Amino acid sequence: MSSAPAKLTATERFLRTCRGEAVDRPPVWLMRQAGRYLPEYREVRKGVTFLEMCRDVDRAVEVSLQPIDLVGSEAVIMFQDIFTPIPAMGVDLDFAPGPVLAEPIRSAEQVDKLRVPEPRESVPFVFEILKTLRRELEGRQVPLLGFAGAPFTLAAYMVEGSGSKDFAHVKRMMYREPEILNALLDKLTESSVGYLNAQIEAGAQAVQIFDTWAGLLTAAEYREWVLPRHQEIAQRVNRDQAPLILYINNGAHLLDDSVESGVDVLSLDWRVDLADAARRHGQRVALQGNMDPSVLAAPPEKIAAMVRDLARDAAPAKGYVANLGHGCLPGTPVEGVRAFTEAVRSL
Amino acid sequence: MSSAPAKLTATERFLRTCRGEAVDRPPVWLMRQAGRYLPEYREVRKGVTFLEMCRDVDRAVEVSLQPIDLVGSEAVIMFQDIFTPIPAMGVDLDFAPGPVLAEPIRSAEQVDKLRVPEPRESVPFVFEILKTLRRELEGRQVPLLGFAGAPFTLAAYMVEGSGSKDFAHVKRMMYREPEILNALLDKLTESSVGYLNAQIEAGAQAVQIFDTWAGLLTAAEYREWVLPRHQEIAQRVNRDQAPLILYINNGAHLLDDSVESGVDVLSLDWRVDLADAARRHGQRVALQGNMDPSVLAAPPEKIAAMVRDLARDAAPAKGYVANLGHGCLPGTPVEGVRAFTEAVRSL
Repeated sequence: MSSAPAKLTATERFLRTCRGEAVDRPPVWLMRQAGRYLPEYREVRKGVTFLEMCRDVDRAVEVSLQPIDLVGSEAVIMFQDIFTPIPAMGVDLDFAPGPVLAEPIRSAEQVDKLRVPEPRESVPFVFEILKTLRRELEGRQVPLLGFAGAPFTLAAYMVEGSGSKDFAHVKRMMYREPEILNALLDKLTESSVGYLNAQIEAGAQAVQIFDTWAGLLTAAEYREWVLPRHQEIAQRVNRDQAPLILYINNGAHLLDDSVESGVDVLSLDWRVDLADAARRHGQRVALQGNMDPSVLAAPPEKIAAMVRDLARDAAPAKGYVANLGHGCLPGTPVEGVRAFTEAVRSL
Repeated sequence: MSSAPAKLTATERFLRTCRGEAVDRPPVWLMRQAGRYLPEYREVRKGVTFLEMCRDVDRAVEVSLQPIDLVGSEAVIMFQDIFTPIPAMGVDLDFAPGPVLAEPIRSAEQVDKLRVPEPRESVPFVFEILKTLRRELEGRQVPLLGFAGAPFTLAAYMVEGSGSKDFAHVKRMMYREPEILNALLDKLTESSVGYLNAQIEAGAQAVQIFDTWAGLLTAAEYREWVLPRHQEIAQRVNRDQAPLILYINNGAHLLDDSVESGVDVLSLDWRVDLADAARRHGQRVALQGNMDPSVLAAPPEKIAAMVRDLARDAAPAKGYVANLGHGCLPGTPVEGVRAFTEAVRSL
């Protein structure tokens, strides 16, 4: 890290890290950092539904920005849901509190009917939120992240009709009616690419795709069904303008294959051995993660020690973004989150 | 396999496989094979609660035996729940349908008060079920399995008070009050050893421990909190009389460490790369698993092809028991289960 410029802004540090360029120390942010664990978030959230909150530009901007000052995060991710672009495809969707479809997608006819909308028209509030955030952040030199749900995860919910422990319906479709699932994944990939590029145009300086359910698959299934979609997104997203981060939940067994996706940064679940990942893949892809969010309930000195372990483990990687291995939990003590970011800052 | 005796009973094939001795082909059974996917099971289950069913010797024996003739399973596992021995420890527990504690275990005082009961007195029906099953099976030469929940999984439920997505309370205890969790794990380990040995005395020819939630831990946490309990169980269970099988749900990242447990057979989650496990660990420990239960919804010829792949992948192991990587799902087509066992028989 000897060739790092003397004084980096948070934006420079984050973007250089994503691209594997020299920095002074790792940047830090937390998945689901704008969330219920923050009293100030709960205050803004009062009296509105989750969906209303997603569409309310002022409220969404406010909670997106809260983690900078309240917990010392060094990046802002827009407040939004991975299902935001889905209703405009022609899907009747509600949150209860997870996504619930009025009619699960099970037939070729249903997939045929799905539209791939122009996101600037179908969900204009997303781009207003991003533009507003970017303006707010310009003076503070903090980077802005956009995001989208990965095609397989969206498809899993859409086929199942809701969240599920086993997602047996999507796997059944995989083995019984692969052409329907393929057509659905094609449309969702198309939609994701357009959605992410529109976010970059609106000001996102990096984008992350969340594959929450790909970890349910075997490595062979991942290679057949999911990896080609990750690769297509990596090829078609404007990565010259905004590096692409891929997070696979519970995907320790998919690590070696996910490196083939071609993304700039792999965001690792806490079950992944970070030292092993950094040693074997860290010169090919930058890494992000991967502290178990439950550890934020530990005493501050324990958190600090674990942050130092993470940094040591990640050292062989060309770039490392300190983060959690999963979203911040609703019951997380705020002081634990602060201890986490402070420990990274003092590395 | 050239030195395998010419004609093996199902019991011989199973026990020889667990001990890594030569056999003609892998034996086959399925986790949660006595379950709701079977109409005949649902018939017996009618009009009784899950708890009543566990304590009703006739009904429990009947559903335990069903999978032999109905789906061609080659081993019987007694119908029972991993929580069966817990109420007698002094815990107020109900099923709704998962285990729910009236009062979660959170204090040292609560752990102190927990008893380690003599299972033959506290849950006599378990041993009646086993003895009856053993008599029924003697003529059929089918092996009988007992089982217990692993200490960490039982502790996770007891501290949380119910099932949970994150089990944040048990992890909080791990980092904030490790001595309470250690004391709880000590008592549960003691209880598990006594319970398993009593099952073996009552006729179980092999026993399996189920660690449903250990997969929530990092490898470092597994080594510190769980592995010593697995090792203690492996040392104290009468393995001369009954081989010991260890199943860790969602534990692909714990494979290398779990080999150190000293059990006879590792039962693998479907996310584990079976070929890699067999190559690296198969001469030290026999393997069981690991087809994704969702695959049983595939067409029979696809299931048969995947069974052949499993057998090929497992070939380097000294012993291989064909099974699923998780319990049979309620919606599984019976013909898929039959296709699975038939494919193994024709290997």
